[in-house]
Amino acid sequence: MRLFHSPASPYVRKVMVTAYERGVEDQIEILGSAAGPVKRDPEIVKHNSSGKVPCALLENDTPLFDSRVICAYLDSLAGREGTVYPQGADRFDVLTLEALGDAILDACLLCRYEAVLRPESLRWDDWYAGQMAKVDSGLDDLEGKWFERISGAFHAGSIAVVCALGYLDFRFSDKDWRSTHPKLAAWFAEVSERRSMKETLPKG
Amino acid sequence: MRLFHSPASPYVRKVMVTAYERGVEDQIEILGSAAGPVKRDPEIVKHNSSGKVPCALLENDTPLFDSRVICAYLDSLAGREGTVYPQGADRFDVLTLEALGDAILDACLLCRYEAVLRPESLRWDDWYAGQMAKVDSGLDDLEGKWFERISGAFHAGSIAVVCALGYLDFRFSDKDWRSTHPKLAAWFAEVSERRSMKETLPKG
Repeated sequence: MRLFHSPASPYVRKVMVTAYERGVEDQIEILGSAAGPVKRDPEIVKHNSSGKVPCALLENDTPLFDSRVICAYLDSLAGREGTVYPQGADRFDVLTLEALGDAILDACLLCRYEAVLRPESLRWDDWYAGQMAKVDSGLDDLEGKWFERISGAFHAGSIAVVCALGYLDFRFSDKDWRSTHPKLAAWFAEVSERRSMKETLPKG
Repeated sequence: MRLFHSPASPYVRKVMVTAYERGVEDQIEILGSAAGPVKRDPEIVKHNSSGKVPCALLENDTPLFDSRVICAYLDSLAGREGTVYPQGADRFDVLTLEALGDAILDACLLCRYEAVLRPESLRWDDWYAGQMAKVDSGLDDLEGKWFERISGAFHAGSIAVVCALGYLDFRFSDKDWRSTHPKLAAWFAEVSERRSMKETLPKG
């Protein structure tokens, strides 16, 4: 499988963490990219009209996107044992937690586009605040009602969450989420020692 | 299952179309909502920190979101026969097509927030153009390389695509996508006759 990759993308990181967790990282050939929300990379657009990474290519250039779909594909490559997508009673809890991690990331990215990409004179404080409120409520829920679920096993939901937390540290390093979310902080420190996390640290 | 619902949301429509297609619409109790990207609905935030619809609640208020997860849940309620999520060789094509429909919708929503919600003096033409370019490339791919896949059966990928096309008609009615995408237009006219589509026409 070939993968349009960016070392700064948290959604690409989800895919790579999943690959390492499932032991299929050697099956991925990395393709560089120049993805951006306003100026798209034409090489990616040929396969994924949104121009977003991650986008994978299988045999005959069959495209596979977005991150959730590629993660599920990599998981299926590795067989049922050790799956990060449990099929039993946990299934929809894990998928909802994956969606929660993705929602935190979506809000983070919109904040970043607002605060970095958009011309300064066109920035709208209420938009930024609305998106950051989603991040904050998400962190509160992870510290609270979702904590047992993320910390009980390292599944697709945990993977989305660690990539969101890693992205906060990478792009919002002034944001002190740890002092207000101590259980989440301790868990993140612990899972950050996994090889899948160390091999995929964001750069950019 | 209870469902935070908005009659204008294309993601809610995905869920409702799936429910009708699978014959489980009677198992959904509709809850009203006042979701918005800047001002969130606190009733939804209690369950889904992003404040977005659709958000479903199962027994004991167990939350289920986002639209992909709820669609997969409703599909599982109805059993394997007639599934809109094929498990064979088609599986990842259908999931990628669902992601493509969602990506068109995400770009449409960002255009709408830019052009309607954001104060006029803070609008950025390049952002709008960049998002609309994703919509246009997506339509081209649906008319081209994806056409056989969407039109071959009515699955989760087709459902995401019809909800995106319906949203274009609802909120971007000046956009003439039909003349440039005649196969897609003919297919959309045909599937719009399904009960699942007629019962879920957007309002707002």
